Amino acid sequence: MIRTMSTSRRQFLGSLASIGAAAAVTPIAARFGGMDGPAPLRIDANRLRGELEALSVFGRPPGGTFADGVSRTAYSDADVEARRYVMDLMRGAGLAPRIDLAGNIFAVRTDARGGAAAARPILIGSHIDSVPNGGNFDGALGSLAAIGVVRAIAASGLATRHPVEVVVWAHEEGGTFPNGLNGSRAVAGQLIAGEMDHVWNGLRRADGVRRIGGDPDRIVDARRTPWFHAYLELHIEQGGTLDRQRVPIGVVEGIVAISRFRAVIVGAANHAGTTPMADRQDALVAASELVLAIREEVTRLPGRQVGTVGRLDVTPNAANVIPGRVEAAIELRDLSAATLRALAEAIDRRAQEIAARTKTTITIDPVGGYAGAPAAASVMAAVERASDALALPHTRLPSGAGHDAQMMARLGPMGMIFVPSVGGISHSPKELTSWEDCARGADVLLGSVIEIDRIDRL
Amino acid sequence: MIRTMSTSRRQFLGSLASIGAAAAVTPIAARFGGMDGPAPLRIDANRLRGELEALSVFGRPPGGTFADGVSRTAYSDADVEARRYVMDLMRGAGLAPRIDLAGNIFAVRTDARGGAAAARPILIGSHIDSVPNGGNFDGALGSLAAIGVVRAIAASGLATRHPVEVVVWAHEEGGTFPNGLNGSRAVAGQLIAGEMDHVWNGLRRADGVRRIGGDPDRIVDARRTPWFHAYLELHIEQGGTLDRQRVPIGVVEGIVAISRFRAVIVGAANHAGTTPMADRQDALVAASELVLAIREEVTRLPGRQVGTVGRLDVTPNAANVIPGRVEAAIELRDLSAATLRALAEAIDRRAQEIAARTKTTITIDPVGGYAGAPAAASVMAAVERASDALALPHTRLPSGAGHDAQMMARLGPMGMIFVPSVGGISHSPKELTSWEDCARGADVLLGSVIEIDRIDRL
Repeated sequence: MIRTMSTSRRQFLGSLASIGAAAAVTPIAARFGGMDGPAPLRIDANRLRGELEALSVFGRPPGGTFADGVSRTAYSDADVEARRYVMDLMRGAGLAPRIDLAGNIFAVRTDARGGAAAARPILIGSHIDSVPNGGNFDGALGSLAAIGVVRAIAASGLATRHPVEVVVWAHEEGGTFPNGLNGSRAVAGQLIAGEMDHVWNGLRRADGVRRIGGDPDRIVDARRTPWFHAYLELHIEQGGTLDRQRVPIGVVEGIVAISRFRAVIVGAANHAGTTPMADRQDALVAASELVLAIREEVTRLPGRQVGTVGRLDVTPNAANVIPGRVEAAIELRDLSAATLRALAEAIDRRAQEIAARTKTTITIDPVGGYAGAPAAASVMAAVERASDALALPHTRLPSGAGHDAQMMARLGPMGMIFVPSVGGISHSPKELTSWEDCARGADVLLGSVIEIDRIDRL
Repeated sequence: MIRTMSTSRRQFLGSLASIGAAAAVTPIAARFGGMDGPAPLRIDANRLRGELEALSVFGRPPGGTFADGVSRTAYSDADVEARRYVMDLMRGAGLAPRIDLAGNIFAVRTDARGGAAAARPILIGSHIDSVPNGGNFDGALGSLAAIGVVRAIAASGLATRHPVEVVVWAHEEGGTFPNGLNGSRAVAGQLIAGEMDHVWNGLRRADGVRRIGGDPDRIVDARRTPWFHAYLELHIEQGGTLDRQRVPIGVVEGIVAISRFRAVIVGAANHAGTTPMADRQDALVAASELVLAIREEVTRLPGRQVGTVGRLDVTPNAANVIPGRVEAAIELRDLSAATLRALAEAIDRRAQEIAARTKTTITIDPVGGYAGAPAAASVMAAVERASDALALPHTRLPSGAGHDAQMMARLGPMGMIFVPSVGGISHSPKELTSWEDCARGADVLLGSVIEIDRIDRL
């Protein structure tokens, strides 16, 4: 039945694409459950919007509005109060939230009726902390939609075979490890020794964890063995692909692997007036060639791999001295570790050519990286079926950003649903996802949970 | 007579060049005054070396040797003591040093016998302050050689038609205006309002000027109307041209004009993971293209023009954020103001092409510059005649670095003599000019003074 509908949808999407208005409206047929099946469950879109607006107050700049974004950094007063608000919402949805040793909030649906009591839960959720001066959708949408999913299932009287468990992860934001992904990383057993002594945002990590009800002294015991049937997270894309393509649902193929390198270019600092051009060993000229070579290598082949030189420091950095040394940070991201390796090798070859030509030396050393986290094929397929049932166009894409989901991928089948970020902007008050797209994403989350619930083995 | 000798020398030099050993030795014929004239006067090379070594002690790193360079920044104890040493040398040479309102040391040869009492002096000298961690030749050579010239003339009994005046300028080092060229700039009437309140090296400028015997409250009165017949300064090249070409004497064509610009490249800071390559507005990619375009434009045509991007600041300069803004300092130098204008225009055109291609904006604004200071043709010719009389190969070249001479060019005919810097290194303990080249330069300074003395109107 689903397959038949899927085919109809594809034809429909083809016609939508041909008029260039895909996802502009939810087709009326879909609102009533498609052409040949019962109406899919829907979350309460107005309530979701109201709760996102209510949550936005915690950490809002004084005198600001929703559009002024939010500063709800982990462990802040705003974070503590927002967590209390979210736990109240959970209770209102019939859930009994508990805080684990890392400060993560878990709440399993206790009134689930179907399936065996021992069935593994379907874990859904996200985070509610924000970057400083961030937006109101990153994390918040996935967290509140998860609660909405529980409410919708409860209201429908549907008996799921697997309990639905909601999670609000502690301290997702904070940039890359070891600053961010703190709560989910603890659960995945990936904490770094001594991490609780790190000072972050002026607060010792241990004190922060304690502020939100965790126990820094026992945080290693927050680690869990695999316990869920699947982990599913709804999140804004934070890139501009869906918005530009006017596709409302992104089916995340996985969270990309990251390779980081430090490039050190050594030339010879010299007088900018007395040194003829031919005699220079200008480290910035060499670095500039390297920056462009990296872009060339990354874009040489089709694919979604990205490469960035985000940091570049010149020494001595004076207007009248030829730069003698440049240090730069190179970052490569792609789902495929093999692609990253090949890119790194190509960049290194280019660097050696550049060094020879510019009479400099260039050394490029790896300084860390993170393995990619592929989504489970079965979970991606379930998300696609749920989207099709709602007549929502969808596309597969990688997540270039890190998410709690990448930690959960270590413990079991993982999937993520993306909704469009207008203009690809995030981590900014300008971060925006239309209310319609928020609701679409939450509906797909709900439908995906029901799809996944039907599957015994993902 | 001189002309005849000159011609013989040229033939001789031609044969020297053909065996690739120009300047390796001073031809014996020259030591005895060439083939057809009296022996040119010579300074006492051993004494010059001894005094350079003695001067190097003031500001030498504790426990160091001559090879460890010197930190004799203006107004420091080392500077004050070194000035005392140099004034003693002046007195020993029959001079009566006086300190002007800016702290410059002037000493006119009072026992000059030839010419009218009202004849304008030939001013020779340099500076003895150094950059921090600098070398023992920059400034010191020209200052001590000037005293040696006075001694040699006095010893010879030669009656010059113009008095010889020695100057040791205060605070030449300190980078570009308003930090450096302090004493000569005051004499040229080019001080900047409020400059005495600047804090430099932890010292208020006014207090520094007072420390070396100047009067900051009346320093504007250090300005002088044109008073000299010619100004002539011996200095190390600080570039590698003479050393590489194995030519012992550089006849400076002038001090180059400098044009400085601030380039601001604005792209869009964005997530380095979620922003596809095609959607980026990477300010550092644009800046890298600009750095290479500047080098291309500067080297497109023959000539000695130079162009440098010495400072480059990336915002936000984080490994995982696409650079949203880059600010860079562009510096162009050439003797010809027209060349600088044409270069600036070409660079601006390239910048606009780059901005369009990289979806960034690039604005390039002038932030100052200094007019060039051409040497007087008659002074250059006199230096060449003096070099020829000593059978010393010479070449004309611009000075890419600033010198007190550029201030004196505002007041009268100016010339400079360069001697080779080994490897083009300066402002470093590794700064080195062979004792032979020091002596050759001082001999040419002496010979040039005598040449210039013969000319009524330069």
